[in-house]
Amino acid sequence: MPKKETPPAAPSPSPWASASARKQQRETKRNAVLSTAAQLFNEKGFHATSLDDIAARLNVSKPTLYYYVKNKDEILIECVRRGLEMMHQGIEETRAAGGQAIDQLLACMRVYIRIVTQDFGMCVIRISDDELPPERRKELRRLKSGIDLEFRRLVAAGIAEGSLKAGDPKMIAFVIAGALSWIGRWYQPGGEFSTEEIATQCLATLQNGILQRPATAKRKR
Amino acid sequence: MPKKETPPAAPSPSPWASASARKQQRETKRNAVLSTAAQLFNEKGFHATSLDDIAARLNVSKPTLYYYVKNKDEILIECVRRGLEMMHQGIEETRAAGGQAIDQLLACMRVYIRIVTQDFGMCVIRISDDELPPERRKELRRLKSGIDLEFRRLVAAGIAEGSLKAGDPKMIAFVIAGALSWIGRWYQPGGEFSTEEIATQCLATLQNGILQRPATAKRKR
Repeated sequence: MPKKETPPAAPSPSPWASASARKQQRETKRNAVLSTAAQLFNEKGFHATSLDDIAARLNVSKPTLYYYVKNKDEILIECVRRGLEMMHQGIEETRAAGGQAIDQLLACMRVYIRIVTQDFGMCVIRISDDELPPERRKELRRLKSGIDLEFRRLVAAGIAEGSLKAGDPKMIAFVIAGALSWIGRWYQPGGEFSTEEIATQCLATLQNGILQRPATAKRKR
Repeated sequence: MPKKETPPAAPSPSPWASASARKQQRETKRNAVLSTAAQLFNEKGFHATSLDDIAARLNVSKPTLYYYVKNKDEILIECVRRGLEMMHQGIEETRAAGGQAIDQLLACMRVYIRIVTQDFGMCVIRISDDELPPERRKELRRLKSGIDLEFRRLVAAGIAEGSLKAGDPKMIAFVIAGALSWIGRWYQPGGEFSTEEIATQCLATLQNGILQRPATAKRKR
């Protein structure tokens, strides 16, 4: 029996997403798990946050989470690692833009403030090394030291170019890092001060010091 | 039979210490347990330090420790509490001495640096709130807030008396507290810098700022 010739039918659309779309969806969901976890760690502390809390805030069951993350420790490491990567990248981009060391330093300070007032950055400051699983601690410490070193280099370059006061670059960089990191401890999203106000006040204090100078006061009058 | 009268003999010395001496000995030993624990927490981290480590460093057995402390959590709380009490007392004494707000503030900053470079003070900085048992966290947070408040009051008084630059006292106090607390994170006993050198550099940076001022530079020439 001769078959009637028909043009090949267009494939009916599959109700499943393509492999690449599935991969992207998975990444989006993993990101949501990590962001929500970081928020909860910052709100309640790492120990007090359970996988159930994270699942509840995402409207999913705890078993669903295990499709995206291994356990609470892995979530913690990933939150801290992302915060550190953000800092590292922000500093790299600022330095790559070039210019005077003092301008690079001030720009890096702004970047750092922006990050420690965000969830992943706040985790970097609020989670102590001691809470990280020992086998991953080394990697995260290396990232932290890299950031310290960048600040120290910029301070040394600023002293060399004459824009910063002479002094020990390591200690001066630690004064800066301490003052800025502390923001990640006391900052409350939606609180009294905006990130912009905090950056303006803290940078002014670090740049010009706390002392009122009679000479400066006179010039202003 | 008539007894021969003899003068009452001096009581033969007891091989046991008196009650008050025993109490004092116990206190001395408890202090040694806490100091050694604080040292170990700062060296290795709280989680990585076991009661066996503490006992070994004191040349005693673990059961002996239980005569002086209940458990590792109690040791931790007591170390942090002592550090906070030292800060509180140091600030109180400095304020009680009176004088200009700026002088009181600078003296308090020195006291704070001295304490965060000592074992109990270092515990205050290195142990996150999250690691403290929830039922005791509130008490220690209250102590911390009290110290923040003292710094804030001194900054506000310094602004009012005209010795400090105008600005938000809360944020300026946090810049100071952050820079000084950070010392407790990076300081290493017997390391590169003495406490005195650290105090001098950090106070200079906070007082005068990091920026080199052309006017100041000119005056110095």
